[in-house]
Amino acid sequence: MARAIGRVAIVGLGLIGSSVARAIKAKLPDVAVTGHDADPDVRAEARALGFCDAVSDDAAEAVEGADLVILAVPVGRMADAAAAIAPGLSAHAIISDVGSSKAGVGAALRAALPGHVVVPAHPVAGTENSGPAAGFATLFDGRWCIVTPAPDAPADAVAAVTGLWQALGAKVETMDAAHHDMVLAVTSHLPHLIAYTIVGTASELEEVTESEVIKYSAGGFRDFTRIAASDPVMWRDVFLANRDAVLATLQRFNEDLTALQQAIRRGDGDRLEDWFTRTRAIRRSIIEQGQDDAAPDFGRKH
Amino acid sequence: MARAIGRVAIVGLGLIGSSVARAIKAKLPDVAVTGHDADPDVRAEARALGFCDAVSDDAAEAVEGADLVILAVPVGRMADAAAAIAPGLSAHAIISDVGSSKAGVGAALRAALPGHVVVPAHPVAGTENSGPAAGFATLFDGRWCIVTPAPDAPADAVAAVTGLWQALGAKVETMDAAHHDMVLAVTSHLPHLIAYTIVGTASELEEVTESEVIKYSAGGFRDFTRIAASDPVMWRDVFLANRDAVLATLQRFNEDLTALQQAIRRGDGDRLEDWFTRTRAIRRSIIEQGQDDAAPDFGRKH
Repeated sequence: MARAIGRVAIVGLGLIGSSVARAIKAKLPDVAVTGHDADPDVRAEARALGFCDAVSDDAAEAVEGADLVILAVPVGRMADAAAAIAPGLSAHAIISDVGSSKAGVGAALRAALPGHVVVPAHPVAGTENSGPAAGFATLFDGRWCIVTPAPDAPADAVAAVTGLWQALGAKVETMDAAHHDMVLAVTSHLPHLIAYTIVGTASELEEVTESEVIKYSAGGFRDFTRIAASDPVMWRDVFLANRDAVLATLQRFNEDLTALQQAIRRGDGDRLEDWFTRTRAIRRSIIEQGQDDAAPDFGRKH
Repeated sequence: MARAIGRVAIVGLGLIGSSVARAIKAKLPDVAVTGHDADPDVRAEARALGFCDAVSDDAAEAVEGADLVILAVPVGRMADAAAAIAPGLSAHAIISDVGSSKAGVGAALRAALPGHVVVPAHPVAGTENSGPAAGFATLFDGRWCIVTPAPDAPADAVAAVTGLWQALGAKVETMDAAHHDMVLAVTSHLPHLIAYTIVGTASELEEVTESEVIKYSAGGFRDFTRIAASDPVMWRDVFLANRDAVLATLQRFNEDLTALQQAIRRGDGDRLEDWFTRTRAIRRSIIEQGQDDAAPDFGRKH
């Protein structure tokens, strides 16, 4: 049995926090949603957009009476956010979050809020845009949400968090936090690091102007600029929080890149063609499993 | 004054060749289009799709009477394709191509077809799909086409090729072939190499299954799978043909990646945040200049 969730408090009202609020209002109209953001400009924008029933200036006030609190702040700010809400928390409140790394966040929340049930979660969804106006209610439809409860977390609290995400449109998987961090290092953190790197590299070459890079970006480069436009503070924190797994997967990437570099230098066409043929199948599987659109060129207008 | 182009022959009827044929039929209905492909299955498919006035089994026959011949084959096959068409070429025929590297291709075409005017071109457009059925008439709308004529190319022939691409919807820039190859190494070849690498890396880790990589690909990885699904033979040839420029830009990428790796290892958040903030502006410029859609997440459906 899942604990009943009648009131959700969301702390951090950016892209993800505001999307959670909108999705709850759209899909669970009987659930009350209160919100808080540390930034007064974000609070004002959130009030104007109206996706929460109430937006509090004070974090502790925002969580009063909440059955579930979702922290949607950069992972480096989770401990501070937990400390800020502590005075207002009901004894029964479940604490969750939406952070992109889980082992460190889970430990930080449990340390900051002793006696509270902590059920960390990570909806694998987003866009390159930031802020409360960027959110939308269907962001989680068909996407995965990974829940990483500690082994001793009460089953009814885990079921409540799982049920909420399913109600918001997500598919839920439960896994160990350390394994989550390795999986996401591969599927999300390394891709962001590589995209950030190449976009920076391209903009600083002497031989090719930035204007040329922009003009001819349709040759492939523009694809990388989307995720390299993601929130800088959020991503800074992800790399610092998930350092070991990111560095481990980066090591593997570097080995493979060096091998392909060697194949190019030696003119080893067979090795290149073999590698490029294998990678084609992965995209087919992603489309078949509904994790990307089948439309060519991401469905861009032509 | 541009030479008049009344008949175009297209050799190679895949994504790009078939898109050129369709665009000519759609936008220049008075121009005759003949086609040839070395693969009999592709010829049969092209005939069924009907985007050429005639598809010849023989390359030399396909180019008879053509004012302009466009070679749309992988860059490693340009010399063979040129040799195959030589017996059928009219003396006045302009030879062009659509290859993604230009210095080597231009030299190969001039060597294979002495006495003919060669005006290499590269439309910076495409999708991850291959084959005649993947082409469409609007592929070049608003995209750049780079023309790289030799310094002694007759102005009326250069103007004819330029005019054709403009009529097909492209914006045309003329530049030196060696500079083209450096620009495209950055904006297209390096991004493809990186995407191919990371997709291969992710599919071969022991700690994370391929099934997990696919399930959680919406965290960023899926963006890379699109261009890593591009034609393996075409891309093998691009890396072999543009080896020096690719290796030079790869060297710069590796330096930057090593610096960010060091910042992660040392916990240098300021350096990460600074780098990630600068890359955001590039995407804004690309959207402002019409080289990508402004819709979040590439406009994917949510």
